[in-house]
Amino acid sequence: MSDAETRLKQLGVALPSPAAPVANYVPFVRTGASLYVSGQVSLGPDGLMKGRLGEDMDIAAGQAAARQCAVNLIAQVKAALGGDLSRLRRVVKLGGFVNAAGDFTDIPQVINGASDLMVAVFGDAGRHARSAVACPTLPLGAAVEIDGVFEVS
Amino acid sequence: MSDAETRLKQLGVALPSPAAPVANYVPFVRTGASLYVSGQVSLGPDGLMKGRLGEDMDIAAGQAAARQCAVNLIAQVKAALGGDLSRLRRVVKLGGFVNAAGDFTDIPQVINGASDLMVAVFGDAGRHARSAVACPTLPLGAAVEIDGVFEVS
Amino acid sequence: MSDAETRLKQLGVALPSPAAPVANYVPFVRTGASLYVSGQVSLGPDGLMKGRLGEDMDIAAGQAAARQCAVNLIAQVKAALGGDLSRLRRVVKLGGFVNAAGDFTDIPQVINGASDLMVAVFGDAGRHARSAVACPTLPLGAAVEIDGVFEVS
Repeated sequence: MSDAETRLKQLGVALPSPAAPVANYVPFVRTGASLYVSGQVSLGPDGLMKGRLGEDMDIAAGQAAARQCAVNLIAQVKAALGGDLSRLRRVVKLGGFVNAAGDFTDIPQVINGASDLMVAVFGDAGRHARSAVACPTLPLGAAVEIDGVFEVS
Repeated sequence: MSDAETRLKQLGVALPSPAAPVANYVPFVRTGASLYVSGQVSLGPDGLMKGRLGEDMDIAAGQAAARQCAVNLIAQVKAALGGDLSRLRRVVKLGGFVNAAGDFTDIPQVINGASDLMVAVFGDAGRHARSAVACPTLPLGAAVEIDGVFEVS
Repeated sequence: MSDAETRLKQLGVALPSPAAPVANYVPFVRTGASLYVSGQVSLGPDGLMKGRLGEDMDIAAGQAAARQCAVNLIAQVKAALGGDLSRLRRVVKLGGFVNAAGDFTDIPQVINGASDLMVAVFGDAGRHARSAVACPTLPLGAAVEIDGVFEVS
């Protein structure tokens, strides 16, 4: 079991079967050593985590939603790597989008829910560049969507 | 004529002369095998396709706007490749931004207008990772903006 | 002194000590020849440049905020390159996010504040692909956030 798998187990994170898009886009594309993973919404084991920060969702719930996006990203990375997370060299970049009301400004704190999980699972290789911005709405009403670029071997 | 050119013709898609930005940015930059194309708005032969989903534009019109963004992306890729679309190896990633009201959640369906065209034109090489999010407004009031990363030879 | 440093001096731009994120993400990650820099907000020497275009901030102020994001991006690039900006080969892509009211559409003009600085500092190597979109709010109420991809040696 890879270190990352061990840490996922210690954290009590069960990776979902990675969602397969139902359209003409795919969950990930590799080009050279870069793996691009499609935007993952905050879909958890109990369904879609919906809400708008600053309106009907607090920061803790937003962080949980961002963490779930990270779980879904990791599930896609694992699928792209034939099940072997030890082939992940680095989380390069996360693009975080938060469903937020116009007066909500704690956007970085929300996306930290994803950043923290990446480092908890991958250690220093989980430290990444990122952007964190707000959107007036997201697919299906999701609270958070995050896409990613990963360096893989 | 490349396969992609043949399919464009069969689809009745005429590529526009690629728009040249009027500022200090450029339509595309190549680094290694990756071609980054600037965000293309829904500018069609009859002018800018303006509107806000969930307010004054329905999903079908939004899909047509997204499709037009894809047409404009392909025109830029062709220009970057010296006119030879057979040098496109893969559509790697599309970043889709939909001008949408706060209660509109069918964002993926809108961006499918672009994803579907990429696969219609490039086949499996057109399958891509993507993100799809909403914005409260877009340049000049455009309904959709999409940028892209492409692998080229 | 590199050409870029000379131009920065001529422009009267003092690079700040690059901000270190206070969370589990980092200011930049290099993968191959690509340097990904985290989204930089419009934080200047006099504090955060806050505001919403089309509401309480005009285009000139927005351009100044975008320019400051570019200054902060350059500071991070310099840090990533061990202080030697001559190792920057190309500004590849800027992702621009403008805090804007729903009826504001001059988003490209705002982001030009960043694009113009890149070309003023780096010449042709500063010409980049970009996207420019709006957000209903940004971290801490910043007026602009911009992330970037750079080709480095």
